[in-house]
Amino acid sequence: MDSMNPHVRVGVIGTGVIGKEHIRRLTHVTAGAEVVAVADVDPARARDAVAGLTGARVHADGLEVVRDDQVDAVVVASWGPTHEEYVLAGIDAGKPVFCEKPLAATQEACVRIIDAELAAGRRLVQVGFMRRYDAAYRALKDVLASGSIGLPLMMHCAHRNPSVSSHYTPDMALTDTAVHEFDVTRWLLDEEIVAINVLTPRPNRRGGELQDPLLILLETENGVLVDVETSVNIGYGYDIRHEVVGEDGTAELGAGSPVVLRRDGGATGPIPADWEERFSGAYEVEMQEWVHSVAAGASSGPTSWDGYAAAVLSDAGMESLRTGAKVAVKLRPKPDLYATRTP
Amino acid sequence: MDSMNPHVRVGVIGTGVIGKEHIRRLTHVTAGAEVVAVADVDPARARDAVAGLTGARVHADGLEVVRDDQVDAVVVASWGPTHEEYVLAGIDAGKPVFCEKPLAATQEACVRIIDAELAAGRRLVQVGFMRRYDAAYRALKDVLASGSIGLPLMMHCAHRNPSVSSHYTPDMALTDTAVHEFDVTRWLLDEEIVAINVLTPRPNRRGGELQDPLLILLETENGVLVDVETSVNIGYGYDIRHEVVGEDGTAELGAGSPVVLRRDGGATGPIPADWEERFSGAYEVEMQEWVHSVAAGASSGPTSWDGYAAAVLSDAGMESLRTGAKVAVKLRPKPDLYATRTP
Amino acid sequence: MDSMNPHVRVGVIGTGVIGKEHIRRLTHVTAGAEVVAVADVDPARARDAVAGLTGARVHADGLEVVRDDQVDAVVVASWGPTHEEYVLAGIDAGKPVFCEKPLAATQEACVRIIDAELAAGRRLVQVGFMRRYDAAYRALKDVLASGSIGLPLMMHCAHRNPSVSSHYTPDMALTDTAVHEFDVTRWLLDEEIVAINVLTPRPNRRGGELQDPLLILLETENGVLVDVETSVNIGYGYDIRHEVVGEDGTAELGAGSPVVLRRDGGATGPIPADWEERFSGAYEVEMQEWVHSVAAGASSGPTSWDGYAAAVLSDAGMESLRTGAKVAVKLRPKPDLYATRTP
Amino acid sequence: MDSMNPHVRVGVIGTGVIGKEHIRRLTHVTAGAEVVAVADVDPARARDAVAGLTGARVHADGLEVVRDDQVDAVVVASWGPTHEEYVLAGIDAGKPVFCEKPLAATQEACVRIIDAELAAGRRLVQVGFMRRYDAAYRALKDVLASGSIGLPLMMHCAHRNPSVSSHYTPDMALTDTAVHEFDVTRWLLDEEIVAINVLTPRPNRRGGELQDPLLILLETENGVLVDVETSVNIGYGYDIRHEVVGEDGTAELGAGSPVVLRRDGGATGPIPADWEERFSGAYEVEMQEWVHSVAAGASSGPTSWDGYAAAVLSDAGMESLRTGAKVAVKLRPKPDLYATRTP
Ligand SMILES: [Mg+2]
Ligand SMILES: [Mg+2]
Ligand SMILES: [Mg+2]
Ligand SMILES: [Mg+2]
Repeated sequence: MDSMNPHVRVGVIGTGVIGKEHIRRLTHVTAGAEVVAVADVDPARARDAVAGLTGARVHADGLEVVRDDQVDAVVVASWGPTHEEYVLAGIDAGKPVFCEKPLAATQEACVRIIDAELAAGRRLVQVGFMRRYDAAYRALKDVLASGSIGLPLMMHCAHRNPSVSSHYTPDMALTDTAVHEFDVTRWLLDEEIVAINVLTPRPNRRGGELQDPLLILLETENGVLVDVETSVNIGYGYDIRHEVVGEDGTAELGAGSPVVLRRDGGATGPIPADWEERFSGAYEVEMQEWVHSVAAGASSGPTSWDGYAAAVLSDAGMESLRTGAKVAVKLRPKPDLYATRTP
Repeated sequence: MDSMNPHVRVGVIGTGVIGKEHIRRLTHVTAGAEVVAVADVDPARARDAVAGLTGARVHADGLEVVRDDQVDAVVVASWGPTHEEYVLAGIDAGKPVFCEKPLAATQEACVRIIDAELAAGRRLVQVGFMRRYDAAYRALKDVLASGSIGLPLMMHCAHRNPSVSSHYTPDMALTDTAVHEFDVTRWLLDEEIVAINVLTPRPNRRGGELQDPLLILLETENGVLVDVETSVNIGYGYDIRHEVVGEDGTAELGAGSPVVLRRDGGATGPIPADWEERFSGAYEVEMQEWVHSVAAGASSGPTSWDGYAAAVLSDAGMESLRTGAKVAVKLRPKPDLYATRTP
Repeated sequence: MDSMNPHVRVGVIGTGVIGKEHIRRLTHVTAGAEVVAVADVDPARARDAVAGLTGARVHADGLEVVRDDQVDAVVVASWGPTHEEYVLAGIDAGKPVFCEKPLAATQEACVRIIDAELAAGRRLVQVGFMRRYDAAYRALKDVLASGSIGLPLMMHCAHRNPSVSSHYTPDMALTDTAVHEFDVTRWLLDEEIVAINVLTPRPNRRGGELQDPLLILLETENGVLVDVETSVNIGYGYDIRHEVVGEDGTAELGAGSPVVLRRDGGATGPIPADWEERFSGAYEVEMQEWVHSVAAGASSGPTSWDGYAAAVLSDAGMESLRTGAKVAVKLRPKPDLYATRTP
Repeated sequence: MDSMNPHVRVGVIGTGVIGKEHIRRLTHVTAGAEVVAVADVDPARARDAVAGLTGARVHADGLEVVRDDQVDAVVVASWGPTHEEYVLAGIDAGKPVFCEKPLAATQEACVRIIDAELAAGRRLVQVGFMRRYDAAYRALKDVLASGSIGLPLMMHCAHRNPSVSSHYTPDMALTDTAVHEFDVTRWLLDEEIVAINVLTPRPNRRGGELQDPLLILLETENGVLVDVETSVNIGYGYDIRHEVVGEDGTAELGAGSPVVLRRDGGATGPIPADWEERFSGAYEVEMQEWVHSVAAGASSGPTSWDGYAAAVLSDAGMESLRTGAKVAVKLRPKPDLYATRTP
């Protein structure tokens, strides 16, 4: 790979909905990348995912993808419990790995990945927290960095889905939904969360038996208090709101509506229908920046440490949801390897 | 007072800043009213307040104002601890009383007022919770009544002041600031608050020693969870925000900016400088509706019960602020006299 | 009438929809005023309008209202062609007159009123251009006065009605609809309009045979170019938009929605249903300020000159609509009596 | 080039600011493309533009780029007067050409390009009207297509630049600035413009001698009336506004601010500083879609016909600016080759 127009040859493990989207992006949207190998637990699905992709090999197993000499870097988009094995194999092979969240199925597995990176002496893993690549969140972070609202004191967040599928469990409000707010809180404030408390308001009839919505309270090292509403059956759209309250002012995500429609007695700005509509741009930037970082031989983006912190926070949140009490969040000491964070 | 163009003769007790504003409104803004008598602890200030007001008498004492034969109804705008005596005197005289908040200095005093109204067999007291008269809050209540967002599940509120004077004490965040959110919560949802928890985020340097901001959590009878940010040193303006989260959607107060200015790299909607700018219209409607209700011989607006509930909530909030724990809110059984609420 | 709490006794001529609204406002909303006499071409309607209003006399003729010794000031809300006679009688009697627009049926009649005021040596007439009393328009004027956007160069306006009645004629787009923009243009910029050009876009099917919408171009003495869209069958609501383009920025009327509703895929700010909803506050301020000015013995608000200019502009606009050409607007020299304008 | 992961080898003519940006995008942002050859009037600048780009050849002349066997498609980003020669050479070579605006220096040159395409029997040329690729404009077009506001009757547009360089001539308000509104008008409405009238308001002191702003009126075949403000010295930012007025409602471009900042008395949504910030996304989509269309062997985007129409409109606008009169716009009959337009 030369300096200005290198070409990254990517192997993709897992060719379900998410994996196929990554293949599509790498092929048709991302510059400087090419999908050269894939594997899936269902071989037919793997073959299907690369039909027409000249020169892409289908392997019987994800480990073969990692070890393929023609593969420069690996995307892990398989079932969560398999992540650890593929990520560790990537580290072992010295190949950059982009791993969809969760980094691994348990805190302990995340620690094993961290230890492997420590042993390797460098960061090879990027975790798929795509909000850090969203233009609006980045503008929010820029405002904080500019100091124009002073030190952050509180954040008010809402994470709303129109509906969720029938397999959505109570824990998923933490592990799948609020986990994004856990990560952006840590990233925006550049500090760790030290306590979590999950409160249960009057439930939405639309959610059936599900405890929905939730109000999740987070406290950070510096005492910033963050409230996160998760509403996953609110019907009207996919709506992500976030306001940072500082000493001198506040900054919040804009409405972002491309058009305003005046009809039927109101001026209406459309709200995204789902997360794909809301964050498709972020997914594209995420992949492009990962490919550029791989080509440059540099690490970038959310790290294994961020994946580990998300796992610990999810576990603490689930405990709080079960017990009704505030739960302290305890992370192991942070290795120097993860001292600087980009972006 | 005849049916269509009656004239209400009002006595005003207390001619400080607030009392003088009421005199100005009653004279120059409110239709169908006239200030005919005043009293103040400082007689010179009382005389001054009605200089040029033909026919207005200055009494040595608030009780004389209440008993003045020419006074149809009384506005109490004196120092809080004196409210109880004047309100009870008004009830005793069978005269409608508009009492600025707080209704009285203690829960127990509020109960005595309630008992006096019960003995009198009718509602004579209106408490000055002016937000119920604000056009935007009324629109919010209309949305809830329409059912268009389903049942309310949560509310997110912020009450922000640019700064407060040096005599602002920690308790005042509850008794003076959040007390408005206590009242609008009860009014919007038409149910009682059963628990309060006051959380203390990282303090704002601009507030010096003051614990500011706060995040106050309220739970209602039906499980609606309300979070209230109070920030009383945020510098940028007087900003009141309120979003109701329902089963099918949300409703929030609009920006309300009369103009949008495009200058210096941004499109800016001005934010009110203070509560007078934000709520001057509400104060006018409040007074006009009170005068109309007095002229019609009907009671209207926030009642003694609402004043009592605010006192109980303030006390519970102060306890929570001191102890750091959630505090249950216990109200005495609600008398039938207060069963219906208007507006 | 004494200095601080004077009472203005008002006679109202014309008790149709508009006149009745004025009676209601003067009685129930405006401080310091009382309706003491009325007349209408339909005596039964006049009697009806003051039923229950203690002490209000019903006269057989508008001139009797003007001459009634108990009448301090007159509101003219009768049919347009009758305005001249009543306004002239008011000036003759030395009584302040509030005259609904139009000031008179023709330019010539407006000139006769001006001449009568000149002969009387003082301004007695206020014309009902209520937009000057709207909070948002006043904020726009304040921005201009502040200099924060530099000198005004252009204005973009839209005046939209959901629908109009079947008696709406093509000329009414100028005389009834755009006449408000004529007046606010002159008031905001504090200069005269020197040319008008009426353009006819593709017509709206909803207006049937009516030429609707229009795009009206105005040029002022200083070369400010103003475009005014009139759309009187646009269905969705009553929407008034106005942006001033200055050298350094722009200022426009805000959305003004009291609430924002998130439902059904969009964030919606409601738009007023009609002009009463949009401008009811302006009508109240207008009447209150008129009453205060009458009580103070001062003149205020839009003058006979403003009524005259509106008539000339309407005539020129109708000529442009007929001929398709730009028409120069010629006003007689402006008498010193009208040199200062308030508010 | 195979069907799913073809690679387009691009030659770039002109390596000034715009050309270098295209090279950067093609290399680092666009999937499926590679810059393999360049030329510039300044050979050193050409060499510099591809320093580090493995395998990119530097030719002495743009025509050599077109004829290079390794070049699949050509980007023309050289000085306007040279466009015709390179575009015609591309057509002659049967190679797709992406040509920055203007398509050519004169109407007549545009006609020669059209004739060449007609002779070739297929569309090979795409002109760089990037607004058609902007997400907000596309949403506006979707609204029109949906019929939700009825037939379009008017459009109100503003095109504002904070400032322009000293070489900006009066004609450039038409050829460089308003030309974008000419194109989006034709694209949004899918019909031709038949008349143009350029009006000159009071000039902005910030523009010195320049006649700025302008108000440009366009009339379409169906009578849609479009007003376009061009303000190129307005200081506050780069602001593009566009509202379509339909029979049943309106649709306008949203504010698009990623964040809202509450500070210093206002709620501010940032406005882009320049066209690059506003339209960088559109440039990326434009290039990606062109590359995809080239790879698919299909033509797409703004055509030579669109480039020709822009030239005719610019000429007519300049005539109107000079004469002060409305000018009719006459296009030659539209060849069938350009009957369908994408996107
Ligand atoms: Mg690629
Ligand atoms: Mg009064
Ligand atoms: Mg009155
Ligand atoms: Mg490329």
